[in-house]
Amino acid sequence: MSTNYSIAVLGLGAMGLPMATRLATGLTVHGFDIAAARMDLAADAGIKTFPTAAAAAADADAVLLAVRNGEQLADVLFGEAGIAASLRPGAVVLMTSTVGVAAVADVATRLAGIGVDLVDAPLSGGPVRAGEGDLLIVVGATPEARAKAAPALELLASTLTVVGDKPGDGQALKTVNQLLCGVHIAAAAEALALADALGLDPAGTLEALQSGAAASFMLGNRGPRALQAYDDDGADVLSRLDIFVKDMGIVTKAAREVALPTPLAAAAEQLYLLGQAQGLGAEDDSAVIRVVAPTRRTPA
Amino acid sequence: MSTNYSIAVLGLGAMGLPMATRLATGLTVHGFDIAAARMDLAADAGIKTFPTAAAAAADADAVLLAVRNGEQLADVLFGEAGIAASLRPGAVVLMTSTVGVAAVADVATRLAGIGVDLVDAPLSGGPVRAGEGDLLIVVGATPEARAKAAPALELLASTLTVVGDKPGDGQALKTVNQLLCGVHIAAAAEALALADALGLDPAGTLEALQSGAAASFMLGNRGPRALQAYDDDGADVLSRLDIFVKDMGIVTKAAREVALPTPLAAAAEQLYLLGQAQGLGAEDDSAVIRVVAPTRRTPA
Repeated sequence: MSTNYSIAVLGLGAMGLPMATRLATGLTVHGFDIAAARMDLAADAGIKTFPTAAAAAADADAVLLAVRNGEQLADVLFGEAGIAASLRPGAVVLMTSTVGVAAVADVATRLAGIGVDLVDAPLSGGPVRAGEGDLLIVVGATPEARAKAAPALELLASTLTVVGDKPGDGQALKTVNQLLCGVHIAAAAEALALADALGLDPAGTLEALQSGAAASFMLGNRGPRALQAYDDDGADVLSRLDIFVKDMGIVTKAAREVALPTPLAAAAEQLYLLGQAQGLGAEDDSAVIRVVAPTRRTPA
Repeated sequence: MSTNYSIAVLGLGAMGLPMATRLATGLTVHGFDIAAARMDLAADAGIKTFPTAAAAAADADAVLLAVRNGEQLADVLFGEAGIAASLRPGAVVLMTSTVGVAAVADVATRLAGIGVDLVDAPLSGGPVRAGEGDLLIVVGATPEARAKAAPALELLASTLTVVGDKPGDGQALKTVNQLLCGVHIAAAAEALALADALGLDPAGTLEALQSGAAASFMLGNRGPRALQAYDDDGADVLSRLDIFVKDMGIVTKAAREVALPTPLAAAAEQLYLLGQAQGLGAEDDSAVIRVVAPTRRTPA
């Protein structure tokens, strides 16, 4: 791994900053964020920051995008202050956010027109795992593009799954993944609220359920936090509820575009939207239990 | 374990017959079913059969009920040919079906009036596991009632979880369990159908999903069978789809009675009802994928 390899990290938010910090352990990193406070944090972490995205991206071997949605993706590349014109031919763009197939496929086509490859690389794992290079990344990209992105991907991922050769394939798998995660978290909420309402001990019920056919990764992971959602302090926010407003929106939009009915995903989306509407957007996603059951019925 | 302990098994269907056969390895078993064909099968398996349920139950230490729903439960005990009058005081009734809290709590009260205990013992595991004594049983019953039922429970269960002291507690846990199982199977169907519609390889997608945060017991267990639902022969029927029509009905009824919104469970119930309406009731429950996607879009 050579420090001659330079990568611009555009977006130094909750995920972008720890990824930049991790990448700086082996590569030359250029950072940019529209928020001055995030730039200051990055500088404190030893990341070299630049006054504009274009300046950070100019002459970099790779550009990693950690943006919020498809609109930001298009804007950072092709908007008024977009970086596309500054990218050097042969550069590679790594798209790490979950924004859906269409948005990524569209920018991939436009980038190909200027000789720039796109690696569709949506990831899972929170900020802590990002900083430790312990992310799960699903990749859709040509072998050539993947080779160009390899120094960065190897530093960030503990598990790298190549889904297909097309940008968009990674987003497709991530979309299916989020359908299950979003439904499973909301199902765990309904189940634990029902246990409570039926007079069962929710913690004991959770343990019994997780040892059998009702088990899911999310029941084990979010279930205990859902029960903490009733505590005065709530659960620690490991992943915000409004991320699932975004992601379930991507899921139901993708399903609609291929004319596939997904009533469970649609119901889960509504639960997260209800949560956001009730002011729970910045809470841990396990707080969705408070949408179906605002208060516990049995003593904690 | 004493062969002086006698148990009547009422209902010799898909689960009742293998349970009776298993119980006969250690206990004296009396069998009865309303269907003559099932009585013949039981006789072939060496079970002593009786012309009426009351005759089978008379003087037995225990009566195991493997019935279809709450109506059958009430009928077999207190209906026109009901066994309640034939039960000897001090006998114990084991209720092994999933019929919901209210139905079991109601008959428990009536049985208590004639000195008979009820052990609420809904179970999980198919016919094969029933025959091998490898069932998962969740129990709601007083310690005294549990002690009376112990010789039978020990022969049937590899995992026995005592949920509480009230008949109905077992049904409550099973209800919550079925909420998750029913939602997870339907979510796996939506996810795999979406993967297929987005052009991903569903089998490869399934493997990738099951190694991460999207994992569930049901995704791993029913996912491969859901993909077989498109084969000419379909998947082997390990658990019929219309069992989830019954069980999700119990879930949504229970939730409604405690005024708990469960939109995911309700959506899943509708998917199983749609499957039944489309003639898939006798198929494996994983065939629910054909409700959202009648045909595969990518070649198998």
